[in-house]
Amino acid sequence: PASPNVLEVRVLVVNTGGTIGMTLHDNGLAPQPDAFVQSLRKLPIFHDEQYAQQTFMYDYYGENTLVLPMTKDYKRIVYSVLEYNPLLDSSNMTTDDWVKIGTDIKKNYEEFDGFVVLHGTDTMAYTASALSFMCEHLGKPVILTGSQVPIYEIRNDGRDNLLGALMIAALYVIPEVCLYFYNKLYRGNRVTKVDTGSFSAFASPNLSPLAIAEAEITIKWDTVWRGNSTAKFQVSTELNRNVGLLRLFPGITAATARAFLQPPMEGVVLETYGSGNAPDNRPDLLEELKKATDAGIIIINCTQCLKGTVSPSYATGQVLIEAGLIAGGDMTPEAALSKLSYVLAKRDLDLDARKKLMSQNLRGEMSSDLAGTRLCLSKS
Amino acid sequence: PASPNVLEVRVLVVNTGGTIGMTLHDNGLAPQPDAFVQSLRKLPIFHDEQYAQQTFMYDYYGENTLVLPMTKDYKRIVYSVLEYNPLLDSSNMTTDDWVKIGTDIKKNYEEFDGFVVLHGTDTMAYTASALSFMCEHLGKPVILTGSQVPIYEIRNDGRDNLLGALMIAALYVIPEVCLYFYNKLYRGNRVTKVDTGSFSAFASPNLSPLAIAEAEITIKWDTVWRGNSTAKFQVSTELNRNVGLLRLFPGITAATARAFLQPPMEGVVLETYGSGNAPDNRPDLLEELKKATDAGIIIINCTQCLKGTVSPSYATGQVLIEAGLIAGGDMTPEAALSKLSYVLAKRDLDLDARKKLMSQNLRGEMSSDLAGTRLCLSKS
Amino acid sequence: PASPNVLEVRVLVVNTGGTIGMTLHDNGLAPQPDAFVQSLRKLPIFHDEQYAQQTFMYDYYGENTLVLPMTKDYKRIVYSVLEYNPLLDSSNMTTDDWVKIGTDIKKNYEEFDGFVVLHGTDTMAYTASALSFMCEHLGKPVILTGSQVPIYEIRNDGRDNLLGALMIAALYVIPEVCLYFYNKLYRGNRVTKVDTGSFSAFASPNLSPLAIAEAEITIKWDTVWRGNSTAKFQVSTELNRNVGLLRLFPGITAATARAFLQPPMEGVVLETYGSGNAPDNRPDLLEELKKATDAGIIIINCTQCLKGTVSPSYATGQVLIEAGLIAGGDMTPEAALSKLSYVLAKRDLDLDARKKLMSQNLRGEMSSDLAGTRLCLSKS
Amino acid sequence: PASPNVLEVRVLVVNTGGTIGMTLHDNGLAPQPDAFVQSLRKLPIFHDEQYAQQTFMYDYYGENTLVLPMTKDYKRIVYSVLEYNPLLDSSNMTTDDWVKIGTDIKKNYEEFDGFVVLHGTDTMAYTASALSFMCEHLGKPVILTGSQVPIYEIRNDGRDNLLGALMIAALYVIPEVCLYFYNKLYRGNRVTKVDTGSFSAFASPNLSPLAIAEAEITIKWDTVWRGNSTAKFQVSTELNRNVGLLRLFPGITAATARAFLQPPMEGVVLETYGSGNAPDNRPDLLEELKKATDAGIIIINCTQCLKGTVSPSYATGQVLIEAGLIAGGDMTPEAALSKLSYVLAKRDLDLDARKKLMSQNLRGEMSSDLAGTRLCLSKS
Repeated sequence: PASPNVLEVRVLVVNTGGTIGMTLHDNGLAPQPDAFVQSLRKLPIFHDEQYAQQTFMYDYYGENTLVLPMTKDYKRIVYSVLEYNPLLDSSNMTTDDWVKIGTDIKKNYEEFDGFVVLHGTDTMAYTASALSFMCEHLGKPVILTGSQVPIYEIRNDGRDNLLGALMIAALYVIPEVCLYFYNKLYRGNRVTKVDTGSFSAFASPNLSPLAIAEAEITIKWDTVWRGNSTAKFQVSTELNRNVGLLRLFPGITAATARAFLQPPMEGVVLETYGSGNAPDNRPDLLEELKKATDAGIIIINCTQCLKGTVSPSYATGQVLIEAGLIAGGDMTPEAALSKLSYVLAKRDLDLDARKKLMSQNLRGEMSSDLAGTRLCLSKS
Repeated sequence: PASPNVLEVRVLVVNTGGTIGMTLHDNGLAPQPDAFVQSLRKLPIFHDEQYAQQTFMYDYYGENTLVLPMTKDYKRIVYSVLEYNPLLDSSNMTTDDWVKIGTDIKKNYEEFDGFVVLHGTDTMAYTASALSFMCEHLGKPVILTGSQVPIYEIRNDGRDNLLGALMIAALYVIPEVCLYFYNKLYRGNRVTKVDTGSFSAFASPNLSPLAIAEAEITIKWDTVWRGNSTAKFQVSTELNRNVGLLRLFPGITAATARAFLQPPMEGVVLETYGSGNAPDNRPDLLEELKKATDAGIIIINCTQCLKGTVSPSYATGQVLIEAGLIAGGDMTPEAALSKLSYVLAKRDLDLDARKKLMSQNLRGEMSSDLAGTRLCLSKS
Repeated sequence: PASPNVLEVRVLVVNTGGTIGMTLHDNGLAPQPDAFVQSLRKLPIFHDEQYAQQTFMYDYYGENTLVLPMTKDYKRIVYSVLEYNPLLDSSNMTTDDWVKIGTDIKKNYEEFDGFVVLHGTDTMAYTASALSFMCEHLGKPVILTGSQVPIYEIRNDGRDNLLGALMIAALYVIPEVCLYFYNKLYRGNRVTKVDTGSFSAFASPNLSPLAIAEAEITIKWDTVWRGNSTAKFQVSTELNRNVGLLRLFPGITAATARAFLQPPMEGVVLETYGSGNAPDNRPDLLEELKKATDAGIIIINCTQCLKGTVSPSYATGQVLIEAGLIAGGDMTPEAALSKLSYVLAKRDLDLDARKKLMSQNLRGEMSSDLAGTRLCLSKS
Repeated sequence: PASPNVLEVRVLVVNTGGTIGMTLHDNGLAPQPDAFVQSLRKLPIFHDEQYAQQTFMYDYYGENTLVLPMTKDYKRIVYSVLEYNPLLDSSNMTTDDWVKIGTDIKKNYEEFDGFVVLHGTDTMAYTASALSFMCEHLGKPVILTGSQVPIYEIRNDGRDNLLGALMIAALYVIPEVCLYFYNKLYRGNRVTKVDTGSFSAFASPNLSPLAIAEAEITIKWDTVWRGNSTAKFQVSTELNRNVGLLRLFPGITAATARAFLQPPMEGVVLETYGSGNAPDNRPDLLEELKKATDAGIIIINCTQCLKGTVSPSYATGQVLIEAGLIAGGDMTPEAALSKLSYVLAKRDLDLDARKKLMSQNLRGEMSSDLAGTRLCLSKS
């Protein structure tokens, strides 16, 4: 409906809940339904009512639609908000919610140029990882964001996180599930929440950001992931729920491992020490792991260190390979867990094919050939 | 035995094993027994043989003793190496090994001015935490260190880590269990291994370093922890082994929690989301936690974020308090786990007294009154 | 005029100009007069018109007054904007402008609880340093801020910088001239602009921030500078303009030094190498410096390194002491230059008294006894 | 002379002086002639005497030759030390010394696989920049290094800096003049000394390191600069000494500028504010600059900020273009100054050709098309 000289770009904002939309109730923060759009509409930095009226925007795009002020290159970012009912605290997120978000993106895929998902920070890294696998042949940006402080407070990080996510989702063709926080755009399956209180809540320890949005928005195009397929976008909504995360600690008993690995468990991320190490003088413990992998449980070896990769160079690492574990490379535990959910739901694949998928890079979630490239150009 | 003008300071080096003393065998690294002292003896930066001969040092202090070149203020750091047999990979460390190290420090406490513990990096943060609790009324420095690259390689971080640890243990009265790595001295129960491969392998996310050792050794004396007791040093060698670490993840089942919490488990660190959050719409899961705490299991609520503190400001955090969990403040999971081992072994204390100890700051492992101090001086 | 239950706090915003209030004209940014207050008035996050009407605020405080939404502890931050005419690009700032700002603060000192100075980023560190010296016996916060991107653009850092500066100036009694940028509050005479384009444009290399304003505003009260005087606040508006900044470089000629040091120059900051070093094999150059100091010119030795302090431990450093230079410790060149302006204008002081002031810590601009405290608690 | 199974690689170490080889004399550090090789020879980590004897190494390569222990891939790094007499404090370095170093590299170019230049840290960034321009069609690594603490002290950074530089110079074909410090390899004309006392003394604010040398040596091959010429290596030993560095400051007088720009000055780096700004309300000052450029002096506009680039987007930046200044992009002042020395000595070029060279990227010292690449892939 815009004037001929203005280009409109459309973004769908899926508001699942989280701190960004919470208000203070009885000394605690709680989500506030139906308030978000109302609140943004009153802020000229988030909405240009005059443009909306002149272009009959609501008639075309519906009531829950807002429009940003014109960008410097004469574009209008028109965004519609789809609010979940009830709004969800991210601690409560489950695979069902991942499916719902994925389905909503699928449903609206053709109509919008980009997607922003508002989400609590606590499990945002898990959801971003899950969506990255569920979205197959993605061709448009899907950007999760949220905030540490509600957008209703005087000082908050929600305003800038939302504005930045909207602009990148609208203006750049980054065909990835991303997470945007505190002026940085990360690959979604590479992040982890590292700080409970700071505005800089997320880190992407094994991959540098895809973009920095400060005075300029600078995209690192050579880091952006591009699938080599031209297949049609689809969302895989089958997810296996029988997966888990087990962190190794000194003195862990075989009984604890056995209890954790009992049916119906089908896939486990084992957070090991350092470069993928476990005790090699604990036949009882290794026996439990071996029994589990023999029984068809896939166990991925990820490090409990924030940064780094799982490699087999130590004597202690070998025993886990012998116990049937798969090296998780530099995947985060969050990525490995949701990848298991995704891969184990592929019913047409046998165990070997699933294992192979788990050790391959599917969505840029792991670095391939780290060691290889490092040495190839040295003098010989 | 030194000349009257030179002051000798003595350090005991407890070599438990780890990468610092490993050599390459069949494409993997393995510990090399009885080689460490021999190797250091050949390096003038680690040993002044002439001084040793002139002062009949070996007669006084034994064969496994070395002496550094004279320091700028005319001191001689004489260090004796106690090597464990077998040398241990840190992945294999258990509470038994913590007890052995503690006992060896106790046994040699009067004879030495400071202690250096060589240890693999993988579980060094766990051991440092455990020793910090086991050492009661400590009055001398106990410094853990190690390296990412064996001291036998051309380029390595072991040389500098060992030299720095030796000098600080000898020259400064820091009555704490510390960890020294890449020119920084950290409080031992505050660290976590954050990088599998970098020389800067450890972080102390919630407490700044106790010292920086670059061109100068700069101690931050106002950060150094000082117990207010004058009691005699002792090592508590009773440790409870029935403790564990459970990380929350989306979709965790009540069955998994129940299995993990079953007897003989007596204490658990639950790694929750963000500021201590868990799902509040999962009565089945919360029920399992409640049943466990009702049965006398102590569950400590620590965040799975690298940095930050567990606080009850979110609605979701409340449910864990109702389920009987104790807020872990800004303790690392490593510190909380070993503190449980230590506190649960205090047989003369009842459950309430143990819980109280768990929520108190015993060795500088948690910040007290974070929120309080922050606001006290604002305008009113 | 507020209701009895609400506490009003008043802040004066001195808008001198700078990027924060610029708009795009003919492909370049230019200041936009009389637009700032109008623009803020339309943004509910910056102004609560309803409160203004109900309390007859404009009648009491004048037209250019705005009021923030109520804070969590029921305070109202009422701020009046004093806009300079013309608005200044900070590149054009001179000592005259510093005097004008200082005078405006003095004039309004009793009426307001805190002061915010909007200023271009380019010379903000110079102005902040100058004001810190000019303001004698300051008892209220004076906070400079600005932005890298105009507040009129969709994404910008001006909003948050202004809101943060307003809240700290209103709510905390920090009796210092400060600079607030990207969620950090710095001491004004410790900062330097380190990045032309990033939102994180300033650094305070030799002093950690006074406050962090993220989810919470955390003041580091033990770093806040407190003069030990109870004298009345006053602004010293006498400044000596015959001061300059000369950076040493390899091959600098004696002629260049002589030319720079010629009358009417009265004070010079010499940016030397490393810890205060200059060539000691250049009698011609050293002669020029000696002649200048003999003639009564005060030359301060500051390092051209971003971080660190000037000390006399190298042979090369000695020659500058012999040439009559004064060690600048860890002062920034910006602080040293404006301190010279301030001290050289003290007409009642003789040369020795001025030199003494230059080498003393007046406003927290330099660390005293760095070396001393470092060693005092080591073993002896 | 090596055994057939061992590959020897040869490195020339040009020891010009600096802290790395200093000892304490009368409370100050001073260079110690003829001591460096003697000292290294006693350290098994720096020299394998047995190998030297067996291979008659001294007969082949001379007395001042040492050999490192065998590397993991069975190579022997044989290095000969060329010590300057007298040893130089880097504060005393001039263009004559740059020429001497360049000449020595040229003289030994064919015989060695790589070059390490030991140098004081104070002016190392200037020398590294100068050598990068002087070395034309360089095909082998030239790596400057040094240390903050003499290699003769117990704890020091000289050992690791020298070992790392030796190994990279020997093992990797990086055809650049580099600077190696604290486990990072930087492009030489991109660095600046940022810390007077820390081991991490250098930064390369506008270009990430070429290599990280921690547990592994990781070369970032896509960052390494490769000239597109196959011409023969040569060293340009003609340097113009009539160049200087002038930092802008508030209140700088036209007289100061005029004095600085007077003959025989031929090239000046003007350190401006922010993105290349200067006062635009100072016709007297701008007039002096204009007069100078009209007279054929080349003035390069570099920012005094540590990081960032000079761009003409502000109204204030335009006036410097009108005054005839050349934008220096993101060059460091050190690089710009030595580039002027190099370019102004090209006698066969006229003024326009020299100006053109100054604004072009010659050795990776400036980023080209920063703005261009940033936007090219955005949606249109």
